[in-house]
Amino acid sequence: MRGEEIRAAALAEFARRGYEATTMADIGAAVGIRGPSLYKHVRSKQELLASVIDATMRALLAGHDAAVAGVTDPVERLRRAVEAHVRFHARHRVEAFVGNRELRSLTEPHRAGVLGLRSDYELRFRRLITEGVSAGVFRVASPRLAAYAILDQGMGVAVWFREDGGPGENEVAWQLAEFALRMVGVDGRV
Amino acid sequence: MRGEEIRAAALAEFARRGYEATTMADIGAAVGIRGPSLYKHVRSKQELLASVIDATMRALLAGHDAAVAGVTDPVERLRRAVEAHVRFHARHRVEAFVGNRELRSLTEPHRAGVLGLRSDYELRFRRLITEGVSAGVFRVASPRLAAYAILDQGMGVAVWFREDGGPGENEVAWQLAEFALRMVGVDGRV
Repeated sequence: MRGEEIRAAALAEFARRGYEATTMADIGAAVGIRGPSLYKHVRSKQELLASVIDATMRALLAGHDAAVAGVTDPVERLRRAVEAHVRFHARHRVEAFVGNRELRSLTEPHRAGVLGLRSDYELRFRRLITEGVSAGVFRVASPRLAAYAILDQGMGVAVWFREDGGPGENEVAWQLAEFALRMVGVDGRV
Repeated sequence: MRGEEIRAAALAEFARRGYEATTMADIGAAVGIRGPSLYKHVRSKQELLASVIDATMRALLAGHDAAVAGVTDPVERLRRAVEAHVRFHARHRVEAFVGNRELRSLTEPHRAGVLGLRSDYELRFRRLITEGVSAGVFRVASPRLAAYAILDQGMGVAVWFREDGGPGENEVAWQLAEFALRMVGVDGRV
């Protein structure tokens, strides 16, 4: 459990100070481990960043897969995928913030690994859209641009969503799913 | 013109190193001004950041106002506003990146000033949507969420748009305007 605790502290420090300005000593201080002992648990600050961002991407992918599993209707698949995407970004704002801001602080091979996961995630949405088009249910000129737009809407939620005011998570998830469906040419006439 | 040149250099350095890690000496070196002479032109690094982000927001607002000026049809107004928003983000990716990433590096009163401009910009979109709803042309449960979603799609363009591959600026602007119109319940049946 020490590793888990250290990763959580690293995430908080990266969010607060930025990756470059954070030192291993800051992270150690946050979990009450002094000096070199921290290196018994983690190899480097870079490894911590990679592990934090990797965990975020894998959680997002797992959430997506669980959301669409066993569902065959293209409308329902996209609705569930968008809701999962939006809810994740409403709940994991710090992870999303660090994952986006510090992507450029990742060195290889970590960077390529994370970009690969991001690309996998985007492709899942593109495929949902393409399947809906093939089934004659969606009308979209560019499934790729539709996927980008849908993903960007959801990522934006991590920036503006507040627990203490404004529309709640359900309203945001339902509305953004509705927007996504309208974007691909399905209109629930809400 | 010295001021203009210094702001451009500051923008580039902030984008490359991040605001915190950039020194006035870095900015001076980039424009060939040594040491204290830089302070003849600008008061501080914070002033430079504020000036760079302020200029970005004012350009965005001016672009919006020009795009909708003299147009009364709600569909056409929203289409033009979204196209202007998207084209700005495709063309000013570095400005958008610094403006978003370094917003938290702004101190008061600069921060409040920029947040005010951002809020003005968002309200313009919300108003366009509300007007369309009042005119019976748009169907939207939450004009506020629709405005957020439309703005987030466009800001995403600054992240993924590439001049050297992928869909070009026109395709992106037209498609995202179409998505925005579909989101508010107008479907051009493209």
